[in-house]
Amino acid sequence: MPRVSQDHLDARRRQILDGSRSCFARFGYEGATVRRLEEATGLSRGAIFHHFGDKESLFLALAEDDASRMADVVAEQGLVQVMRNLLVRPDGQRAADGEHPADWLGTRLEVSRRLRTDPDFRARWAKRSERLTMATRDRLRRQRAVGKLRDDVPVEVLAAYLELVLEGVVSHLAMGLPADDLDPALDLVEESVRRHRRG
Amino acid sequence: MPRVSQDHLDARRRQILDGSRSCFARFGYEGATVRRLEEATGLSRGAIFHHFGDKESLFLALAEDDASRMADVVAEQGLVQVMRNLLVRPDGQRAADGEHPADWLGTRLEVSRRLRTDPDFRARWAKRSERLTMATRDRLRRQRAVGKLRDDVPVEVLAAYLELVLEGVVSHLAMGLPADDLDPALDLVEESVRRHRRG
Repeated sequence: MPRVSQDHLDARRRQILDGSRSCFARFGYEGATVRRLEEATGLSRGAIFHHFGDKESLFLALAEDDASRMADVVAEQGLVQVMRNLLVRPDGQRAADGEHPADWLGTRLEVSRRLRTDPDFRARWAKRSERLTMATRDRLRRQRAVGKLRDDVPVEVLAAYLELVLEGVVSHLAMGLPADDLDPALDLVEESVRRHRRG
Repeated sequence: MPRVSQDHLDARRRQILDGSRSCFARFGYEGATVRRLEEATGLSRGAIFHHFGDKESLFLALAEDDASRMADVVAEQGLVQVMRNLLVRPDGQRAADGEHPADWLGTRLEVSRRLRTDPDFRARWAKRSERLTMATRDRLRRQRAVGKLRDDVPVEVLAAYLELVLEGVVSHLAMGLPADDLDPALDLVEESVRRHRRG
């Protein structure tokens, strides 16, 4: 048998993650059957579970992958930009491109739903979601260091505030409510964490 | 047959609403079977559906009743107070008393979930949820009139902002995340809509 290269393994992993992301976004966790996952990824169940063990682990890997990409956006542009990216596709439908933020919304919604209904999932997720919180706090600390952030409120409170608004945006979009009135509200959010000029 | 008084009808209606509120909060819409609704209200299915037609109409009446009570709190104390009330029972479990805000959370969550998954419900709900939005805007206008509210942002934007945060609080609690870090974040929310002293 030929030796499988690391590049090949990574590419296969990526193919499974991107395909199943659309599938979970479209059908939800329970609705994303093994057959549908096969169709969405173009791979057999054997190949899928060779890489990810079981459906639960696949979903967690996916959610972790999304949280990690959100953390990258946070690090460079802040959490409010993550929210603005979510508004790009207000219908919450998946886009053709697996990289599209609307698919993050799908995963994020499934995470929210499972956190509500499944205590075991809650425990497994807690460890994996820390990166986003850390990225948010790091970004806020850097913004504070260069004088862009208000300095009368602890960074932890500002981070909790921003995460609360993010949850609100996710929920708002998930309910199919119009997104066109959200941009000015997000301007207000951005302003409320910013350092205000004196005088 | 004796003539049934309006008071008696109202009391019976209230008994059904309060009992089924706990039932929906505990089991969710699908899980609140007719048998469970009978147990929770202490009434027969015949009596329940005599007053509310069917389960869907009962749930809508309940959600409307909650939105109306939330609107009363908003009118007197503002939407941030509604959010603080939700924090009283951070575990999201129903309280013994049917009037408890934690039961509003249960109904609100079911509304959120059904808005996501059921387009027909979305249309029926839209008409009924307006009262809360109106109450929020009215309260903001009155606050502005007495100089307590910032006047550089339209009332509609402030209302959209507050509703976004409310959704975030509901979602946060629903996911079973700790509520103890939310109070300072809500202070920040309150401050960001308030009129700031000059000088």
